This record gives sequence, structure tokens and C-alpha cells, in this order.
Amino acid sequence: MLYFENDYSEGAHEKILQRLTDTNMEHLSGYGADPYCSSAKDKIRSACQCPDADIYFLSGGTQTNQIVICSMLRQYEGVLSASTGHIGVHEAGAIEYTGHKVLELPQKDGKITASALSSYLENFYGDANHEHMVFPGMVYISHPTEYGTLYSKEELESVSQVCREYHIPLYMDGARLITGLACPEKDLTLPDIARLCDVFYIGGTKAGTLCGEAVVFTKQNTPAHFMTTVKQHGALLAKGRLLGIQFDTLFTDQLYQEIGKAAIETASILKKGFQEKGYQLYNDSPTNQIFVILDDEKMEKLKKNVVFSFWEKPDNTHTIVRFATSWATKKDEIKQLLSLL
Amino acid sequence: MLYFENDYSEGAHEKILQRLTDTNMEHLSGYGADPYCSSAKDKIRSACQCPDADIYFLSGGTQTNQIVICSMLRQYEGVLSASTGHIGVHEAGAIEYTGHKVLELPQKDGKITASALSSYLENFYGDANHEHMVFPGMVYISHPTEYGTLYSKEELESVSQVCREYHIPLYMDGARLITGLACPEKDLTLPDIARLCDVFYIGGTKAGTLCGEAVVFTKQNTPAHFMTTVKQHGALLAKGRLLGIQFDTLFTDQLYQEIGKAAIETASILKKGFQEKGYQLYNDSPTNQIFVILDDEKMEKLKKNVVFSFWEKPDNTHTIVRFATSWATKKDEIKQLLSLL
Amino acid sequence: MLYFENDYSEGAHEKILQRLTDTNMEHLSGYGADPYCSSAKDKIRSACQCPDADIYFLSGGTQTNQIVICSMLRQYEGVLSASTGHIGVHEAGAIEYTGHKVLELPQKDGKITASALSSYLENFYGDANHEHMVFPGMVYISHPTEYGTLYSKEELESVSQVCREYHIPLYMDGARLITGLACPEKDLTLPDIARLCDVFYIGGTKAGTLCGEAVVFTKQNTPAHFMTTVKQHGALLAKGRLLGIQFDTLFTDQLYQEIGKAAIETASILKKGFQEKGYQLYNDSPTNQIFVILDDEKMEKLKKNVVFSFWEKPDNTHTIVRFATSWATKKDEIKQLLSLL
Amino acid sequence: MLYFENDYSEGAHEKILQRLTDTNMEHLSGYGADPYCSSAKDKIRSACQCPDADIYFLSGGTQTNQIVICSMLRQYEGVLSASTGHIGVHEAGAIEYTGHKVLELPQKDGKITASALSSYLENFYGDANHEHMVFPGMVYISHPTEYGTLYSKEELESVSQVCREYHIPLYMDGARLITGLACPEKDLTLPDIARLCDVFYIGGTKAGTLCGEAVVFTKQNTPAHFMTTVKQHGALLAKGRLLGIQFDTLFTDQLYQEIGKAAIETASILKKGFQEKGYQLYNDSPTNQIFVILDDEKMEKLKKNVVFSFWEKPDNTHTIVRFATSWATKKDEIKQLLSLL
Repeated sequence: MLYFENDYSEGAHEKILQRLTDTNMEHLSGYGADPYCSSAKDKIRSACQCPDADIYFLSGGTQTNQIVICSMLRQYEGVLSASTGHIGVHEAGAIEYTGHKVLELPQKDGKITASALSSYLENFYGDANHEHMVFPGMVYISHPTEYGTLYSKEELESVSQVCREYHIPLYMDGARLITGLACPEKDLTLPDIARLCDVFYIGGTKAGTLCGEAVVFTKQNTPAHFMTTVKQHGALLAKGRLLGIQFDTLFTDQLYQEIGKAAIETASILKKGFQEKGYQLYNDSPTNQIFVILDDEKMEKLKKNVVFSFWEKPDNTHTIVRFATSWATKKDEIKQLLSLL
Repeated sequence: MLYFENDYSEGAHEKILQRLTDTNMEHLSGYGADPYCSSAKDKIRSACQCPDADIYFLSGGTQTNQIVICSMLRQYEGVLSASTGHIGVHEAGAIEYTGHKVLELPQKDGKITASALSSYLENFYGDANHEHMVFPGMVYISHPTEYGTLYSKEELESVSQVCREYHIPLYMDGARLITGLACPEKDLTLPDIARLCDVFYIGGTKAGTLCGEAVVFTKQNTPAHFMTTVKQHGALLAKGRLLGIQFDTLFTDQLYQEIGKAAIETASILKKGFQEKGYQLYNDSPTNQIFVILDDEKMEKLKKNVVFSFWEKPDNTHTIVRFATSWATKKDEIKQLLSLL
Repeated sequence: MLYFENDYSEGAHEKILQRLTDTNMEHLSGYGADPYCSSAKDKIRSACQCPDADIYFLSGGTQTNQIVICSMLRQYEGVLSASTGHIGVHEAGAIEYTGHKVLELPQKDGKITASALSSYLENFYGDANHEHMVFPGMVYISHPTEYGTLYSKEELESVSQVCREYHIPLYMDGARLITGLACPEKDLTLPDIARLCDVFYIGGTKAGTLCGEAVVFTKQNTPAHFMTTVKQHGALLAKGRLLGIQFDTLFTDQLYQEIGKAAIETASILKKGFQEKGYQLYNDSPTNQIFVILDDEKMEKLKKNVVFSFWEKPDNTHTIVRFATSWATKKDEIKQLLSLL
Repeated sequence: MLYFENDYSEGAHEKILQRLTDTNMEHLSGYGADPYCSSAKDKIRSACQCPDADIYFLSGGTQTNQIVICSMLRQYEGVLSASTGHIGVHEAGAIEYTGHKVLELPQKDGKITASALSSYLENFYGDANHEHMVFPGMVYISHPTEYGTLYSKEELESVSQVCREYHIPLYMDGARLITGLACPEKDLTLPDIARLCDVFYIGGTKAGTLCGEAVVFTKQNTPAHFMTTVKQHGALLAKGRLLGIQFDTLFTDQLYQEIGKAAIETASILKKGFQEKGYQLYNDSPTNQIFVILDDEKMEKLKKNVVFSFWEKPDNTHTIVRFATSWATKKDEIKQLLSLL
């Protein structure tokens, strides 16, 4: 069987696991007050060229979205998101659970535009009844998006500019950011992101850690007593070392770049392979998620040897499916898949 | 320096780490749908002699308390707890965050009594205004308690009996359960606990895992769509294997008993040592947390070589401090500490 | 100045105010345990031909929506609503504040269709990832809708049928129900609504009370300890008599029908007048809200003498505005308005 | 039958009802934007000698406590209250429902002391683990208290002083404030309260309105978009006039003083009567709630002719009961009650 259904099916990158083993019996303080957490934060600050950034480690993506969003919003505010945003669709209402509405913006390829954002805000404040409505208090974007696409620097700059104008923070969900950064087509660097976003996270789970996401507050804007909020959400790991050691390793000798590159390389071979064999791609994703339109017969046949993800049905006889690669995907597996097509 | 400040200062037990390494490159399904989670659940069911138990793995204790309690309570209900209960004091209001009040019961040595519980409930339902008050909808106990003490079988049976009478579930916070089970003075076994409680958790973090707690619903009483609730709380790990593999190892060849015994052995040597040297114990904790009343001068001197935890000040010249042992504590460290006293 | 901006600009219908005065010095129990509340409930049960209905009085519409919805949903569920539903747009996130997502359905003239509902539910349960999504746990409709339209009996029966199939309750927001019932074009009676909905409310505020809405649970399905939930939301009036006396009067000698009829009569004269004078109606609302497309110049002129509500802008030179009548609108005011057109 | 069970058993003071009737057919803007609300606010500002105060009208006490507290606290904060505080006991968990813990302070006669408050805060910030605990973010007091007692000016100044030191707001629940102000023993005036508290409310429901409480933010410290928060809680009445007209009348020609005085006069006759007849008062309440210790036989006999409230049982043969007077209590009723004793 060949596995392409996601990018978190293996354990940890071997260097990360080795580091956990090497440090295992060291006696360390709990709750993130250990030297590995500090060191990891320093390395991330440096990679972001953002020496003042405040950094926190959490365990998973939904947890991170929930805590960041609800700690930055005021009670009467909601968060703006593309209608396809992960927070609005596949997080079981984690944002609403904290009392906040996800306000939908139109999307294209999983991305919002500065002009749609601007219209929304202008209309909102122009509406005489807006005091009876949820105030837009934050903008959420994912990069890469749920459709594998990337914001260009120009696009992010425009969105960021609108946020500045309206004094609302811009938050980037970077569950797959490390892969996005490794993409040759990418336009945005870590320092760009740190400059343009008020807060973002660098996902570990989909980039070779066992678990863990690094939240980066870039503008000395960490909500007061953020650690207490993390605890209140049940998200403060006693053995904070588990996160610190993994991120410290990820940012040592650019391991994160190596991990991202590996996923992109196999993805681009696969993408080219699909195209050469005449398959129709659903969109032009430059990252490690490739969306293909299969006719249903073909799909059923392929299923016998390959695991991939159902995405949606464009019509009665075709299906959009997703193939994901990761740091753990072997070129040989790609070869086998291509020979099956 | 000698470290006795808690039981979660090292990484994982070596067998657990080894197992993570051995299975690292296996391709496994996410979100807990992997064979290690299944196998771990089977082993726990068997250790509890509770073949129908539903078991879920979560990451930490506060998270577990929050999710179990809020998913079992109805909106208008609160949870009864000893006034010293962890949920009421040291979880940053995690229960209240979900909309539920922690209703305090009087405690002795961290334990509640069936009679105090019974009085509370009788008074509540006898109060003509109780429709204006928070309904008691669950009983929370910790075992071992925050003071290292254990419920006897008789005590737990009585508390459980009152819960049955009033049709409210009994929930045990077993953050240190594995250590409690290994204690020669213990009266309660895992099957007793599974029989008498409606739900409880077996803590991994304080018993040699990197993270992880196993929630056991014992009466086919899992709240509907519990997994969705877990996701809604941001507590569903993509790499569920991290928890499954660790718990599977913990319950293979009784490793959990070995781990518990190790903590208890060093604790009992230490306890006897304190007593022989004329130190006054604050209470008669039979588990791995030893509470000692130190005169402040002595305490300051000891601090130079030993790390321990401040508990409370009984008067102006003395302090109650806690020494905790764990599976990782070496007998030699105990010897060194005793020679310093 | 002529006032047509809403249907809650005057105080109470004179009979209601008189009754409040007549009973003012009676010594009555608080919190709804007075004979007027009982009598009002009996009269409503009888008007609904639903002898088993449980009835509660609350103060306002948003409060009612919030409490009914959150007390009937489980934690992991959201409420389905037309995208134009009041709960999703103009209630400041009151539903999300209680932790629940408003799940949008497509609408036409403010109404949802059984087939769109059915599709949504089928897709949801057909989605392999639905455990990561918000469960649809209730259907919210408004009748009359935010656009003044009414469900036909056939439409409501179909929607109700889908709800039965999926075992989710159907909830009708009847803020303007009394007016809807008085409409000659209406197809649905109170007994129909009680039979087809699991819960609905009869709005008082927009039908001549000072405040107050009557919630009707039709299927012996009142959430447990509903009164405590009402208290928990700060919605239990000490002087419950204020609501009981008003609703008792509203349902004495069919006053509610008289009130509804008065609003409809003036509205239909006005509507005909608009049509005769060649104005374009935005939709064919049969109730007391009339939506007219005005050219902007005309609108500005009219504003000098008439108060009405801005609705939306269909293009750059026109505006959709709303004229609302009520029990307090005088025929002479209609005449004056028509002569201004 | 004689009724002394509470101070909200009649409708409205006749002048208030008359004013509602006089203004009934005036066409007024909704949601509090009417001239009566404005005028009422001006009169309250003036009575408080606090020209900058922001004033909002809400419907009931629990609603007011819930909205004021949750809008002023940050997510990680709780509210300090006497253990007997209404918010902690008889509001069905309304504060916890908004995610915030009620942190208990010791009480005497329903009051907290500056020194107990100061100790709590000092201990909290002195605790090395306080980041894992609920932050004290507000102080709640009731005046008169649940036991009918009053803070002296010195007491309130000291409590206020501690709040200033720790930068946490002081909030007074004035459900019965109007009665407290009318008490000859009272030390605190409305301007004192406005000066010493950051926010407080003046209760209408227990002082002759049909419903309604006036929240006063005294330090230009209204939470941003407070009206939207009110709406989000379902607490924004469409016919805001109902509250505005009542409070405007209450503060016209010092009606509120007249109403308070009436309640106090009958209470003091009653209190003296109890004392003269040798009854034991439970405490020395100077306001309109009188707590008497009755032997149970006597109590049962009295119940046949008088309605009063059960409070608590000090021993097996006695009961503490409460007699409440109000603006509507007639001197003749007092005479009849005394003759029954």
C-alpha cells in the first residue's frame, strides 16, 4: 500500500527523536521554563529577524487557533476568515466554543483579498445597525491555505495594510508554513511574515515533530498573562521540554528547511507526473498538497493500492482527491505511485 | 543539586522512549485511529477488569479535567470538589471557563467524606430556592489527593453510594493514580476504582510518559460524540500514536506497576529518614509526595543544595514544604538528601 | 413627522396597560409563580390546541433565541439558519456567545427549503470527516421572516418532516408571529405551528406589550430545569407578573388577533397605495413590513417628513427601504404618507 | 394573610405607573435612544454628583451582575466576593456561565473587610504558582448586603483604597441601594458611592419599578461597545422607554427617597416591635430586611397568617426567618403582624 493521505502519518524526524533521547534524563523545570524552550525561542526570533517576538509553544493547530484567537478578541468581536478557513469548517466549532463568531469572507483558492476585506469593513462601519452586530476584531488567514496555495508578498502586504487601517490584528495559521517556506514559487519569507502579521504560528506537527506549534507574537502584543490563558484552556504541558526540544532541533542547522524541502521535492515530481500522464489538476497548488480530478472508475481502481483523501465531488462521475507528501515520503514511493497511474 | 520538586522533571521512561523510536517510521492513521491506541485500550480494559470501558487519550491533566467535566455536566450544573481540589485551585479556572461552577465541599487531608457530600445534597434539594442555585451534577475527587493521601475502599464505596442515590456521576482525577496503586498501604485496586467510579483517568505525565492521560468511562456512559468535543477543545492530537504507543507500553508487562513502585520505594525511605532525624511530617502521606514542616532557618540552608516545593506557612517561623519522588529518583539521591538533613 | 420605522415605537396596547394598572397593588409571588402567568399559559395552550405545551415568559427576542437554542443544543452542536436569519446577523453573536455556531443555509425571501435542509444534512453525515465538524443540532426559522414573508403550510410541513427524519428539533422565531397570523394570505394557524414545531415563541414586544415573549415547548420537551437556565442567563424577572399579566390580556377575548389585524390592515392599504402610485416593491411581503425600492432622490425628499428604515442598496441610484406598520398605526397616517408619495 | 416575604411583590409605585400611562402613545426610538432615558441619566448623574458618569439601564439584578462583571473582567480573571454574595449563591452560576470564577472572601454580616481583601491579594501575588490560578480582577460587594447590613463610609473607603492599590475595579450591587440610602443609620451617600466605586447599580425592581436597574460607570471606564455586549447577552430591550421612563420618574422630585423612606419606616417599627416583645434578632440590620430567630413551634403558628422567608436553621429547634418591608407595606399591616406575635 502507498500512503499519501496526509503529512502527519509518521512519528518524528529522526534528528528530533534523537534529541529527545539524548536529553531524556536531564532534570528540567516544567511548563516551558527549561533552557530548550528558551533556546528554541531565540532561534525562531533569529529566523524571523524579529528580536522582540514573544514565542509560546502549544500542542496542536486547533488548540493554537482557539487560544490565540480568543485571547486577542474582545467579547463582542469575531474573527474574519475565508469561508474555506480551517477554523470555520474543520475545527468542530472551537472558535464559537470560546464565544466568538467566525465571520466569513469570500475566497478564491482558499485566499481572501484585501479588497473583499476592505469592503466588508467599510460596509460594517457604514451600517447604522452595526452596534447590533458582531464586530470584526481580527483577520485569520492560512498560509499555505487549505487548498495548498500561497499568498504573494503583494497580497499579504495589501491585507496587512487594511488590517493596520482598521486597527485589527492579522493572524496567520501556519500549520504547513514550513513546507510553504521551502517552495521555490514562494514569495514570502519568515521575516516578511513576522513583519506583516501581528501573530502567526509555525506548525511542527506537519513538519516532523510528534506534536507542537510555535506561536509568534511579533509586535510586543502578547495578551496579558497569556500563560494563564493557556493553562485555563488545559493546554499547558507539564513537560514543556517535549515542545522546546523539538522546536530547538527544528531550528538547529536549518533542519526545518531541509524538512520542508523534502516534502516539496516529492510533491513537485508527483505533480509533474500527474500532468505528464494527462491528469487534470484541480488547482495549481505549489506546495505539498496536490488536488487531482479523477474519474470515479479510475479512483476506485487506484484506491486498491494507494491511500489518498476525498476532497469533493465536482460532478457525478468525477471526484477531487488530495495527495499529500511530507518529509517522510520516499522518492521511490512517488515512482511506484506514478507507475500505477 | 538534588531535585525533589516534582515527579515530572525528566522525559519518558526508557522503555517508552524506545518504543516510540522503534515504531517511529510506521505509517499510522491519525487522531487515535491507530493499532497502538486500540491495543493500549484493550490492555487498560483488562487491567481494570472492565471489558466495556470506553477509553480516550488526552494530553494533560487540566485538559482532561476540563473536557470530562464539561462534557458530562448539563449547562445548569456544577461539580462538587474538596476545597483543596486541583480543579478549584490550580487550574486557572479551567472549569469555570466552560461555564460551570466548582462547588466546594469541606475536606480533610484533601479528601471529602460521604457524609459531608450527603449533607450538601440533602440541604440543596431541601432548599426551597434551589432552582436559583447551581445544581450539583458531578463529584470530583483526586486519588491520591493533592496532599498525597489515599481513599480507603470503604471511603470510596460510601462516596460512590451517595452518588448512586442522587444519580450524579463520580469522577476520579488519577493524575498520580499509578503511584497510588503501587503503595503498600493502598486499599483500592484498578478494578475497584473502575467499579466505583463512573469515569476516571490514569495519569501518564507523572508516571513516566512524555505526556498523556487515559480517560476511562466505566459504565457505557461516554458523552455522545465525545471525540468531537475533544476536537472542539483543541485537544485532539493529529499524531494520536504519541499517546497510544506510550500507554500501550505502560500497560505492557506491568510497566506501570514497576514505575509506581520505584516512586514509592524512594519516597518511603525518605519518609522514614525524615522521621528518624526528628523532622515533623505535616501529614501521613503514604505516596510519593512527602510534606514536612521545616523551621525557616533550616529550610533556607537546605535550599542551597536541594530543590523542593513551598506548600504553605503554618506560622511565622515554619514552612510546610513538599518533597516528591518519581520513577526517575535514584536511591543514591535519597541517601545524599538524608545526609544533608 | 410620520413614523414607519418599526413596530415597537409606542408603549403597550391600552387594554394591556389598563390591566397592569388594575392589578398593580395585588400581592403576587415572584419569578412567574403568580396566577396571571398560569392563566396566560392556559389561554395560550388553548389557542395552540396543545394542552401539554410547556410555556415560559421571557423579556425579549434575542434573549429568547439565545436561551432556547443553547438549552436545546448539546455542546458539540450548532443551529441551522437561513443566512439572513436574525440570529446570524443582528443579535451581536448572542448564539456564539453561548458556544454554538450558526450554520448557514441558503435562503430565498428569508426562507429555507426542505430540500436545501435535507441536502445539508445528507452531505454532513456523508462526510467522512464530520466528526471534526459542528453537528447540526437544531433548525431555526423565523415566521414571518426578516423579509416579511410567510411559510406556507406545505413548506413548513416539509421542513418539519426533514427535522423528524434527522431527529433535530425545529424552532420558530415568532417575534412577529401575531401579525403573521392575522394576515389573510396566511396558511399556517397557531395549532399548525404547535404541531409542526418542537418549540416556538409568540412575540409580545412587536404586538403591543411593553416587553415579553412567550416560549412554547410543544412536545413535552422542555429542557430539564429550564427555569434555572433562565436564571443563569439573568433572564428571570423578579416581577414575573409583568409578563404574565400582559400575555394573559393579549390572549383574553382574542386581543392578539385584533392587534395583528390592525397592523395588517394599515400595511395592506399602504402596499396597495405604493403599487397604485407605481412604486416598485422589493418583494411580495404579505405582512406588516413593506420593502420598497426608491430612487435615491425620492428617498431623500421623503426622509424630510417620514421616518422609515434603510435596508440595502441594490445599485448606486436606488435604495431598498422598509416601512413597518403596527397596532398603533392610524389609517390617517397611512393617508398622509400616501399623499406624500 | 400578611405578606412580608420580599420587597417585590407588588407592581410599580403609582407615580411610575402613571407616567408610563401618560407617555404610552408617544412615538419613541428603540433600544434606549429616547429622551426619557437621556433625562433619567442626567438626573442620576446629578444625584450622584458625578457629571461624567456613563449610565445604562438593564432589566434585572442577575442580568446586571452578569453583564457588568463579565464585560469588565479579562478572560483569566475572577471576581472576589463575600462567601454570602448573591452572585456566588443565588444566581444559578450566572457569573461562571460567562467563564469567570467567583473567588470567595470571608464575610461578617455579609460584608468583606479591607484587611481580608488585602491579605487575599498579597497572598495571591506572593504565591509562586499564581500564574496557574485565577487572577483576582474585580471586587464585588452588595450594599445593603444579603443580611440587610450597610458598609460605613470608613469601611468602603478602606476597601476602595485596596482596590486602587491593586488596580482592580470595585463594583457595588445596589439591588436594595435606594432603601439603604434612606436609612437613618446610613453613612454613605450616593456621591460617596460614586466616588469610591468604579461601577455600581441602583436597583429599581426592589424600589418600586416593574423592572429595571441603572448601571453607573463612574470613572469614564465603560467597557468598549458596552451596548453591543448588552445585546449579545439578550439584554437590550427594544422598548428601552420602559426603563427610561421608570427611572426618570424615580429620580424626579426625589421619588426614590420617598420610596426608600417608606420601606425603612415600616421596617423600623417592626424591628422595635420584635425587640419589645422579646424576640431575638439574628443581626442588627438597619434596613428593610429583618432577620429573626424564631422557635420552630412559634414559627409554624405564625405561618398560618403571615408569609415570610426561611433563611437558615441555627439549631434543631429554631429557625432564622426574614421579614421584608417595602414602599408598598402599610403601617396597618405592621400593626396586625405585631399583634399576632
